[in-house]
Amino acid sequence: MKFQIEEAIEILSQTPVVVKSLLENLSDDWIKSESNAESWSAFDIVGHLIHGEETDWIPRAELILAQGENTTFEPFDRFAQFEKSKGKTLNELIENFAASRAKSLRKLREMNLTEEKLQLKGIHPELGEVTIEQLLATWTVHDLGHIKQLVTVLARKYAENVGAWKQYLSILQ
Amino acid sequence: MKFQIEEAIEILSQTPVVVKSLLENLSDDWIKSESNAESWSAFDIVGHLIHGEETDWIPRAELILAQGENTTFEPFDRFAQFEKSKGKTLNELIENFAASRAKSLRKLREMNLTEEKLQLKGIHPELGEVTIEQLLATWTVHDLGHIKQLVTVLARKYAENVGAWKQYLSILQ
Repeated sequence: MKFQIEEAIEILSQTPVVVKSLLENLSDDWIKSESNAESWSAFDIVGHLIHGEETDWIPRAELILAQGENTTFEPFDRFAQFEKSKGKTLNELIENFAASRAKSLRKLREMNLTEEKLQLKGIHPELGEVTIEQLLATWTVHDLGHIKQLVTVLARKYAENVGAWKQYLSILQ
Repeated sequence: MKFQIEEAIEILSQTPVVVKSLLENLSDDWIKSESNAESWSAFDIVGHLIHGEETDWIPRAELILAQGENTTFEPFDRFAQFEKSKGKTLNELIENFAASRAKSLRKLREMNLTEEKLQLKGIHPELGEVTIEQLLATWTVHDLGHIKQLVTVLARKYAENVGAWKQYLSILQ
Protein backbone atom coordinates (compact mmCIF):
# COMPACT_ATOMS: atom_id res chain seq x y z
CA MET A 1 0.00 0.00 0.00
CA LYS A 2 1.43 3.33 -1.02
CA PHE A 3 1.78 5.72 1.93
CA GLN A 4 -0.56 8.72 1.81
CA ILE A 5 -0.86 11.13 4.71
CA GLU A 6 -4.63 11.43 4.44
CA GLU A 7 -5.00 7.66 4.77
CA ALA A 8 -2.65 7.50 7.77
CA ILE A 9 -4.75 10.25 9.38
CA GLU A 10 -7.87 8.11 8.91
CA ILE A 11 -6.40 5.66 11.43
CA LEU A 12 -4.60 8.21 13.63
CA SER A 13 -7.70 10.33 14.13
CA GLN A 14 -9.85 7.35 15.11
CA THR A 15 -7.53 5.79 17.69
CA PRO A 16 -8.74 7.97 20.59
CA VAL A 17 -12.35 7.12 19.64
CA VAL A 18 -11.55 3.41 19.52
CA VAL A 19 -9.70 3.55 22.87
CA LYS A 20 -12.59 5.43 24.45
CA SER A 21 -15.22 3.03 23.04
CA LEU A 22 -13.25 0.10 24.36
CA LEU A 23 -12.48 1.35 27.85
CA GLU A 24 -14.68 4.13 29.15
CA ASN A 25 -17.63 2.07 30.37
CA LEU A 26 -15.71 -0.78 31.92
CA SER A 27 -15.91 -1.76 35.57
CA ASP A 28 -12.81 -1.74 37.70
CA ASP A 29 -12.61 -5.53 37.44
CA TRP A 30 -11.68 -5.16 33.77
CA ILE A 31 -9.29 -2.29 34.30
CA LYS A 32 -7.39 -2.98 37.47
CA SER A 33 -4.23 -5.02 37.10
CA GLU A 34 -0.82 -5.58 38.47
CA SER A 35 0.97 -3.30 36.10
CA ASN A 36 4.71 -3.54 35.75
CA ALA A 37 7.35 -3.11 33.08
CA GLU A 38 6.56 -6.52 31.56
CA SER A 39 2.80 -6.47 31.72
CA TRP A 40 1.08 -3.15 31.10
CA SER A 41 -2.40 -2.29 32.28
CA ALA A 42 -4.91 -0.31 30.19
CA PHE A 43 -3.87 2.69 32.29
CA ASP A 44 -0.19 2.23 31.35
CA ILE A 45 -1.01 1.80 27.67
CA VAL A 46 -3.03 5.02 27.40
CA GLY A 47 -0.31 6.85 29.38
CA HIS A 48 2.27 5.54 26.91
CA LEU A 49 0.19 6.80 23.96
CA ILE A 50 0.04 10.28 25.52
CA HIS A 51 3.80 10.32 26.10
CA GLY A 52 4.30 9.46 22.42
CA GLU A 53 2.27 12.49 21.38
CA GLU A 54 4.36 14.74 23.59
CA THR A 55 7.86 13.49 22.86
CA ASP A 56 7.96 11.10 19.93
CA TRP A 57 6.00 11.44 16.70
CA ILE A 58 5.44 15.11 15.95
CA PRO A 59 8.57 16.32 17.79
CA ARG A 60 10.68 13.93 15.69
CA ALA A 61 9.01 15.04 12.46
CA GLU A 62 9.69 18.65 13.44
CA LEU A 63 13.32 17.82 14.14
CA ILE A 64 13.75 16.27 10.70
CA LEU A 65 12.04 19.20 8.99
CA ALA A 66 14.33 21.64 10.78
CA GLN A 67 17.27 19.73 9.19
CA GLY A 68 19.80 21.24 11.52
CA GLU A 69 23.24 19.86 12.21
CA ASN A 70 21.96 17.26 14.57
CA THR A 71 18.91 15.34 13.40
CA THR A 72 19.49 12.49 15.83
CA PHE A 73 16.31 11.82 17.83
CA GLU A 74 16.21 11.84 21.59
CA PRO A 75 15.72 8.23 22.71
CA PHE A 76 12.06 7.60 23.51
CA ASP A 77 11.39 6.61 27.11
CA ARG A 78 9.06 3.60 26.91
CA PHE A 79 8.43 3.67 30.64
CA ALA A 80 7.85 7.39 31.30
CA GLN A 81 4.11 6.83 31.78
CA PHE A 82 4.64 4.99 35.06
CA GLU A 83 5.73 8.29 36.62
CA LYS A 84 3.75 10.76 34.51
CA SER A 85 0.31 9.18 34.88
CA LYS A 86 0.41 9.01 38.67
CA GLY A 87 -2.70 10.37 40.40
CA LYS A 88 -4.79 10.43 37.22
CA THR A 89 -7.89 8.37 36.47
CA LEU A 90 -8.15 6.24 33.34
CA ASN A 91 -10.91 8.49 32.00
CA GLU A 92 -8.68 11.54 32.49
CA LEU A 93 -5.93 9.82 30.52
CA ILE A 94 -8.37 8.91 27.74
CA GLU A 95 -9.47 12.56 27.47
CA ASN A 96 -5.87 13.78 27.59
CA PHE A 97 -4.91 11.39 24.84
CA ALA A 98 -7.78 12.61 22.62
CA ALA A 99 -6.74 16.24 23.15
CA SER A 100 -3.03 15.54 22.55
CA ARG A 101 -3.79 13.57 19.40
CA ALA A 102 -6.02 16.32 18.01
CA LYS A 103 -3.21 18.80 18.60
CA SER A 104 -0.66 16.50 16.94
CA LEU A 105 -2.85 16.13 13.86
CA ARG A 106 -3.30 19.89 13.60
CA LYS A 107 0.49 20.25 13.63
CA LEU A 108 0.86 17.46 11.09
CA ARG A 109 -1.50 19.20 8.67
CA GLU A 110 0.31 22.50 9.16
CA MET A 111 3.56 20.86 8.04
CA ASN A 112 2.11 20.56 4.50
CA LEU A 113 4.24 17.53 3.86
CA THR A 114 4.90 17.09 0.16
CA GLU A 115 6.17 13.85 -1.41
CA GLU A 116 9.62 15.39 -1.26
CA LYS A 117 9.48 16.38 2.39
CA LEU A 118 8.23 12.90 3.31
CA GLN A 119 11.60 11.54 2.14
CA LEU A 120 13.66 13.82 4.42
CA LYS A 121 15.74 11.86 6.88
CA GLY A 122 16.54 11.86 10.57
CA ILE A 123 18.82 9.61 12.57
CA HIS A 124 17.22 7.15 14.96
CA PRO A 125 19.62 6.45 17.85
CA GLU A 126 19.41 2.69 17.26
CA LEU A 127 17.98 2.20 13.77
CA GLY A 128 20.00 4.78 11.85
CA GLU A 129 18.52 6.71 8.92
CA VAL A 130 14.72 6.90 8.77
CA THR A 131 12.39 9.09 6.73
CA ILE A 132 9.41 11.20 7.81
CA GLU A 133 7.21 8.84 5.81
CA GLN A 134 8.51 5.86 7.79
CA LEU A 135 8.00 7.79 11.02
CA LEU A 136 4.34 8.51 10.17
CA ALA A 137 3.67 4.94 9.02
CA THR A 138 5.22 3.71 12.29
CA TRP A 139 3.04 6.08 14.29
CA THR A 140 -0.02 4.54 12.62
CA VAL A 141 1.05 0.93 13.15
CA HIS A 142 2.08 1.76 16.72
CA ASP A 143 -1.52 2.88 17.41
CA LEU A 144 -2.92 -0.38 16.05
CA GLY A 145 -0.37 -2.37 18.06
CA HIS A 146 -1.52 -0.78 21.29
CA ILE A 147 -5.20 -1.39 20.49
CA LYS A 148 -4.17 -5.01 20.01
CA GLN A 149 -2.41 -4.91 23.37
CA LEU A 150 -5.50 -3.42 25.08
CA VAL A 151 -7.87 -6.11 23.82
CA THR A 152 -5.35 -8.81 24.73
CA VAL A 153 -5.07 -7.49 28.31
CA LEU A 154 -8.88 -7.49 28.58
CA ALA A 155 -9.30 -10.96 27.06
CA ARG A 156 -6.82 -12.51 29.51
CA LYS A 157 -9.11 -11.56 32.39
CA TYR A 158 -11.45 -14.32 31.18
CA ALA A 159 -8.68 -16.81 30.36
CA GLU A 160 -10.04 -19.35 32.83
CA ASN A 161 -13.75 -18.51 32.56
CA VAL A 162 -13.94 -19.81 28.99
CA GLY A 163 -13.26 -23.40 30.06
CA ALA A 164 -12.49 -25.86 27.25
CA TRP A 165 -12.95 -23.15 24.59
CA LYS A 166 -9.54 -21.74 25.54
CA GLN A 167 -7.81 -23.86 22.90
CA TYR A 168 -9.85 -22.20 20.14
CA LEU A 169 -9.11 -18.63 21.23
CA SER A 170 -5.75 -17.54 19.87
CA ILE A 171 -5.88 -14.27 21.82
CA LEU A 172 -5.45 -16.35 25.00
CA GLN A 173 -2.39 -18.28 23.79
CA MET B 1 -11.86 -12.52 37.57
CA LYS B 2 -15.23 -13.86 38.64
CA PHE B 3 -17.71 -14.02 35.77
CA GLN B 4 -20.61 -11.58 36.03
CA ILE B 5 -23.08 -11.11 33.22
CA GLU B 6 -23.23 -7.34 33.61
CA GLU B 7 -19.45 -7.10 33.17
CA ALA B 8 -19.49 -9.36 30.10
CA ILE B 9 -22.19 -7.11 28.64
CA GLU B 10 -19.92 -4.07 29.14
CA ILE B 11 -17.61 -5.56 26.50
CA LEU B 12 -20.28 -7.21 24.33
CA SER B 13 -22.30 -4.02 23.99
CA GLN B 14 -19.28 -1.94 22.98
CA THR B 15 -17.87 -4.25 20.28
CA PRO B 16 -20.09 -2.85 17.49
CA VAL B 17 -19.08 0.68 18.52
CA VAL B 18 -15.39 -0.26 18.50
CA VAL B 19 -15.70 -1.99 15.12
CA LYS B 20 -17.52 1.01 13.66
CA SER B 21 -14.98 3.50 15.09
CA LEU B 22 -12.17 1.46 13.63
CA LEU B 23 -13.56 0.86 10.15
CA GLU B 24 -16.28 3.19 9.01
CA ASN B 25 -14.14 6.11 7.81
CA LEU B 26 -11.42 4.12 6.11
CA SER B 27 -10.54 4.39 2.43
CA ASP B 28 -10.74 1.36 0.21
CA ASP B 29 -6.95 1.00 0.36
CA TRP B 30 -7.25 -0.03 4.01
CA ILE B 31 -10.23 -2.29 3.51
CA LYS B 32 -9.69 -4.11 0.26
CA SER B 33 -7.75 -7.32 0.48
CA GLU B 34 -7.35 -10.71 -1.01
CA SER B 35 -9.64 -12.49 1.38
CA ASN B 36 -9.53 -16.25 1.62
CA ALA B 37 -9.97 -18.94 4.23
CA GLU B 38 -6.50 -18.34 5.67
CA SER B 39 -6.41 -14.57 5.63
CA TRP B 40 -9.66 -12.76 6.37
CA SER B 41 -10.42 -9.21 5.32
CA ALA B 42 -12.23 -6.70 7.55
CA PHE B 43 -15.33 -7.56 5.49
CA ASP B 44 -14.99 -11.28 6.31
CA ILE B 45 -14.43 -10.59 10.01
CA VAL B 46 -17.56 -8.47 10.42
CA GLY B 47 -19.54 -11.05 8.43
CA HIS B 48 -18.27 -13.75 10.78
CA LEU B 49 -19.36 -11.71 13.83
CA ILE B 50 -22.88 -11.39 12.37
CA HIS B 51 -23.08 -15.12 11.68
CA GLY B 52 -22.13 -15.77 15.32
CA GLU B 53 -25.05 -13.66 16.50
CA GLU B 54 -27.45 -15.60 14.32
CA THR B 55 -26.31 -19.17 14.91
CA ASP B 56 -23.84 -19.43 17.76
CA TRP B 57 -24.01 -17.57 21.05
CA ILE B 58 -27.64 -16.91 21.92
CA PRO B 59 -29.02 -19.93 20.02
CA ARG B 60 -26.65 -22.18 21.97
CA ALA B 61 -27.59 -20.58 25.30
CA GLU B 62 -31.26 -21.09 24.40
CA LEU B 63 -30.58 -24.73 23.56
CA ILE B 64 -28.94 -25.32 26.94
CA LEU B 65 -31.76 -23.56 28.80
CA ALA B 66 -34.34 -25.71 27.02
CA GLN B 67 -32.49 -28.75 28.44
CA GLY B 68 -34.17 -31.15 26.07
CA GLU B 69 -32.94 -34.63 25.26
CA ASN B 70 -30.36 -33.36 22.87
CA THR B 71 -28.29 -30.42 24.08
CA THR B 72 -25.52 -31.02 21.55
CA PHE B 73 -24.82 -27.82 19.61
CA GLU B 74 -24.94 -27.60 15.86
CA PRO B 75 -21.34 -27.21 14.65
CA PHE B 76 -20.60 -23.55 13.94
CA ASP B 77 -19.68 -22.80 10.34
CA ARG B 78 -16.59 -20.60 10.52
CA PHE B 79 -16.73 -19.85 6.80
CA ALA B 80 -20.43 -19.10 6.27
CA GLN B 81 -19.75 -15.38 5.89
CA PHE B 82 -18.03 -15.88 2.54
CA GLU B 83 -21.39 -16.80 1.05
CA LYS B 84 -23.74 -14.79 3.28
CA SER B 85 -22.04 -11.39 2.96
CA LYS B 86 -21.98 -11.38 -0.82
CA GLY B 87 -23.27 -8.18 -2.41
CA LYS B 88 -23.17 -6.20 0.83
CA THR B 89 -20.98 -3.20 1.62
CA LEU B 90 -18.76 -3.11 4.68
CA ASN B 91 -20.86 -0.31 6.18
CA GLU B 92 -24.00 -2.42 5.71
CA LEU B 93 -22.33 -5.29 7.54
CA ILE B 94 -21.25 -2.97 10.36
CA GLU B 95 -24.85 -1.75 10.77
CA ASN B 96 -26.21 -5.30 10.58
CA PHE B 97 -23.78 -6.42 13.24
CA ALA B 98 -24.82 -3.58 15.57
CA ALA B 99 -28.50 -4.46 15.12
CA SER B 100 -27.92 -8.22 15.59
CA ARG B 101 -25.84 -7.64 18.69
CA ALA B 102 -28.46 -5.34 20.24
CA LYS B 103 -31.08 -8.04 19.64
CA SER B 104 -28.81 -10.72 21.16
CA LEU B 105 -28.26 -8.64 24.29
CA ARG B 106 -32.01 -8.07 24.69
CA LYS B 107 -32.51 -11.84 24.54
CA LEU B 108 -29.67 -12.39 26.98
CA ARG B 109 -31.25 -10.04 29.51
CA GLU B 110 -34.63 -11.72 29.07
CA MET B 111 -33.08 -15.04 30.05
CA ASN B 112 -32.62 -13.72 33.60
CA LEU B 113 -29.66 -15.99 34.10
CA THR B 114 -29.13 -16.77 37.76
CA GLU B 115 -25.90 -18.19 39.18
CA GLU B 116 -27.57 -21.59 39.00
CA LYS B 117 -28.65 -21.29 35.38
CA LEU B 118 -25.16 -20.16 34.40
CA GLN B 119 -23.91 -23.60 35.41
CA LEU B 120 -26.32 -25.51 33.15
CA LYS B 121 -24.51 -27.58 30.57
CA GLY B 122 -24.64 -28.27 26.88
CA ILE B 123 -22.55 -30.58 24.74
CA HIS B 124 -20.09 -29.00 22.32
CA PRO B 125 -19.57 -31.33 19.34
CA GLU B 126 -15.80 -31.28 19.82
CA LEU B 127 -15.14 -29.97 23.34
CA GLY B 128 -17.75 -31.96 25.28
CA GLU B 129 -19.52 -30.48 28.32
CA VAL B 130 -19.55 -26.70 28.57
CA THR B 131 -21.61 -24.34 30.75
CA ILE B 132 -23.64 -21.27 29.81
CA GLU B 133 -21.14 -19.22 31.80
CA GLN B 134 -18.26 -20.56 29.71
CA LEU B 135 -20.27 -19.87 26.54
CA LEU B 136 -20.83 -16.23 27.53
CA ALA B 137 -17.19 -15.72 28.58
CA THR B 138 -16.14 -17.21 25.25
CA TRP B 139 -18.48 -14.88 23.37
CA THR B 140 -16.76 -11.94 25.09
CA VAL B 141 -13.22 -13.13 24.42
CA HIS B 142 -14.19 -14.02 20.84
CA ASP B 143 -15.20 -10.36 20.30
CA LEU B 144 -11.85 -9.12 21.61
CA GLY B 145 -10.00 -11.68 19.47
CA HIS B 146 -11.65 -10.38 16.32
CA ILE B 147 -10.87 -6.75 17.20
CA LYS B 148 -7.28 -7.93 17.55
CA GLN B 149 -7.55 -9.59 14.14
CA LEU B 150 -8.97 -6.40 12.57
CA VAL B 151 -6.15 -4.16 13.82
CA THR B 152 -3.58 -6.76 12.75
CA VAL B 153 -5.02 -6.87 9.21
CA LEU B 154 -4.88 -3.06 9.04
CA ALA B 155 -1.35 -2.83 10.47
CA ARG B 156 0.02 -5.28 7.91
CA LYS B 157 -0.92 -2.87 5.12
CA TYR B 158 1.97 -0.68 6.31
CA ALA B 159 4.38 -3.56 6.98
CA GLU B 160 6.90 -2.23 4.47
CA ASN B 161 6.21 1.50 4.87
CA VAL B 162 7.61 1.54 8.41
CA GLY B 163 11.15 0.76 7.21
CA ALA B 164 13.66 -0.19 9.90
CA TRP B 165 11.05 0.29 12.66
CA LYS B 166 9.49 -3.04 11.65
CA GLN B 167 11.62 -4.92 14.17
CA TYR B 168 10.11 -2.90 17.05
CA LEU B 169 6.49 -3.47 16.05
CA SER B 170 5.31 -6.83 17.36
CA ILE B 171 1.98 -6.53 15.52
CA LEU B 172 3.96 -6.94 12.27
CA GLN B 173 5.79 -10.10 13.33
